Amino acid sequence: MVNRVLTMEKINDAARHLDGIAYHTPLYYSNSFSKMSGARVYIKLENMQKTGSFKIRGAYNKVMSLVGVGCHGVIAASAGNHAQGVAYAAARAGLPCTIVMPSGAPISKIVATQSYGARVVLAAGGYDDAYNHAVELQEKNGATLVHSFNDLEVMAGQATIALELLKDIPDIEAVVIPIGGGGLIAGVSYALKHLRPGIRVIGVQAAGAPAVYLSAKKPLLVETEATCTFADGIAVRRPGTLTFPIIQEYVDEIVTVDDEEIAGAILMLLERSKIVAEGAGAAGLAALLYRKVSLADIRTVALLSGGNIDVNILSMIIERGLAKTGRYVRMRALIKDQPGNLGKLLTLLASTRTNVISVLHDRIKPNIPLKQAEVELVLETRDKKHIDEIVLLLAHHDYTPTVIS
Amino acid sequence: MVNRVLTMEKINDAARHLDGIAYHTPLYYSNSFSKMSGARVYIKLENMQKTGSFKIRGAYNKVMSLVGVGCHGVIAASAGNHAQGVAYAAARAGLPCTIVMPSGAPISKIVATQSYGARVVLAAGGYDDAYNHAVELQEKNGATLVHSFNDLEVMAGQATIALELLKDIPDIEAVVIPIGGGGLIAGVSYALKHLRPGIRVIGVQAAGAPAVYLSAKKPLLVETEATCTFADGIAVRRPGTLTFPIIQEYVDEIVTVDDEEIAGAILMLLERSKIVAEGAGAAGLAALLYRKVSLADIRTVALLSGGNIDVNILSMIIERGLAKTGRYVRMRALIKDQPGNLGKLLTLLASTRTNVISVLHDRIKPNIPLKQAEVELVLETRDKKHIDEIVLLLAHHDYTPTVIS
Repeated sequence: MVNRVLTMEKINDAARHLDGIAYHTPLYYSNSFSKMSGARVYIKLENMQKTGSFKIRGAYNKVMSLVGVGCHGVIAASAGNHAQGVAYAAARAGLPCTIVMPSGAPISKIVATQSYGARVVLAAGGYDDAYNHAVELQEKNGATLVHSFNDLEVMAGQATIALELLKDIPDIEAVVIPIGGGGLIAGVSYALKHLRPGIRVIGVQAAGAPAVYLSAKKPLLVETEATCTFADGIAVRRPGTLTFPIIQEYVDEIVTVDDEEIAGAILMLLERSKIVAEGAGAAGLAALLYRKVSLADIRTVALLSGGNIDVNILSMIIERGLAKTGRYVRMRALIKDQPGNLGKLLTLLASTRTNVISVLHDRIKPNIPLKQAEVELVLETRDKKHIDEIVLLLAHHDYTPTVIS
Repeated sequence: MVNRVLTMEKINDAARHLDGIAYHTPLYYSNSFSKMSGARVYIKLENMQKTGSFKIRGAYNKVMSLVGVGCHGVIAASAGNHAQGVAYAAARAGLPCTIVMPSGAPISKIVATQSYGARVVLAAGGYDDAYNHAVELQEKNGATLVHSFNDLEVMAGQATIALELLKDIPDIEAVVIPIGGGGLIAGVSYALKHLRPGIRVIGVQAAGAPAVYLSAKKPLLVETEATCTFADGIAVRRPGTLTFPIIQEYVDEIVTVDDEEIAGAILMLLERSKIVAEGAGAAGLAALLYRKVSLADIRTVALLSGGNIDVNILSMIIERGLAKTGRYVRMRALIKDQPGNLGKLLTLLASTRTNVISVLHDRIKPNIPLKQAEVELVLETRDKKHIDEIVLLLAHHDYTPTVIS
């Protein structure tokens, strides 16, 4: 047990290990987000990192530290980005790799992890069960467990992001970073504060997974009963024993964002910046857009940590986001069940300059008055006012409209 | 009518005009796409350009050429990116701006154009009707019409992309560029061939809008009756009289891609690279991925021209793409209408390691045998083989499964 602390030397070593392996990801200035948040917003695009998230930095650095010291293979528990990072790193290092995933993990993530050559074992239950299973397996087969955040080599790998930031924007004033177990923010804040102590470091947690936020308040390691957020990359119940003291020392402030806000940031990244973010990845920007922290005119980097979102969820976020802002509405209307009446309704709708996305015409629902038919409409609208106008118009023409979402 | 030809001088002037206005967009190397296509694939991210597409380059350069020469305002016909480019440029130049759009234009595009301060006029019909209406309005109010491609200043603006490419990757060997009316490829190919004659320039059209492709074959300006592609940014019936001769001289090859291929490229960009592309924007990459052109080991830039895709369409492409590759399936099954039977079916499904996305349970459809209920399932699956296994298993247990998409 030599040298059980994080050092700039470890971080510089990590940068050397990662040279030619991890991408130096782009930094992107956003006019729109600057206007919306009041800060001067740069986004660090770790979603464009190899394997789709920053996790490969820490995983690769850790795995490389194991090569040539009698390591027979690696094992990790993860449903997501860490799995892919470790699998990729082990393949490069020529080490056998086992990843234990919760049995409900999205198939896309299982397939992606297997595509890097790892053996995937599914464990019933959630992340904790997968982790316990990994510990058991490791005791049996002697592979080295690679923890996803509570590890100095992992933190040193993540910290290389700080070196890239200081290179690309030397006069940076603040950095906003998502927190799950704390490996990313511990590494990055350590390096930033050592190299440029004046930079503000702000951490962001999901309101449904606030273990580090609560711990920092106490201050004492707090473990939550469960997590409740779709941002699975930061849904962690237990802060790291190694990460937490570093966070305590170097992070200036921690805030939380709820799932609605995270989804809002994902949709805005998609529409305004043409960028795909996963829930954890969008948390930092969400904190800026929903003004959880006061950074007026401050040159701020939002660290977009990853883009591995299940496309089914993305599709859902789009629909919900449009509905929320009145740009999309589902409604029901009743028409007399005679030829031509559906056409009349659609003509009336056209006069409101709405676009019809889909029409479902149902004559057999038992709860509909006889000789009437129900029409379910999905409409593209301008805003909530536009929806109100449409509802009023339909009501005025006796179509008995009901908005259903 | 002085100097009615494109020159490098015009292009260098455009670069000066655009300095500080248009972004120098990132160039991104993709391992995945290189493996899939056999080429060495770089992507030029004009989707991250201001207003979400390259169009601002040509529009701004044109509008600036009008300032101080007695221009009272500008007018343009466009349902999309050109509209936003002209509106932005006019606002910067302090000129009044009218944009004529086809009446069916997506509301999101109308709102975006208005947000840059332009007056939007809707014209019944398609793009041609909008264009004719713009010509009429222009004759009445004396504004200057800014054509979206058939204009030397517009082409010179688009050509500045070539200067950025040569700066970022001097040893580039080939560039693949989407073609609608030809303004982008005319400008870029002219500049590339003048500065580095050995570079191959390949144009890509949508199979449903192949006017330039057909014209180049003849070779003679061919106008098509109609266009049929969801890539609205390149759905042009009539090549430009100014763009076509330049394309004839400087473009080495033109290929076509169909809508399925374009949608495939959009989904792959979304999932693998975390990048949002519109149909026209993904056409170049589609040509590489579906090997329409032989570029083995060649350093190739795919020009991703824009990202302004309607999110409703994006949502649809996700669903269809997943269904096509067997990662998503909708199926119906019949169960006995007794308590517990839905649970049994779901337990059976769980044994196949599919994830259930949604369940619709319908007991009142008139065409279902009495005492049975229909269940509509949406499932996340691994691939087509996985779907076959599930169908066989359900059939074996008398659930009468039918795949519906």
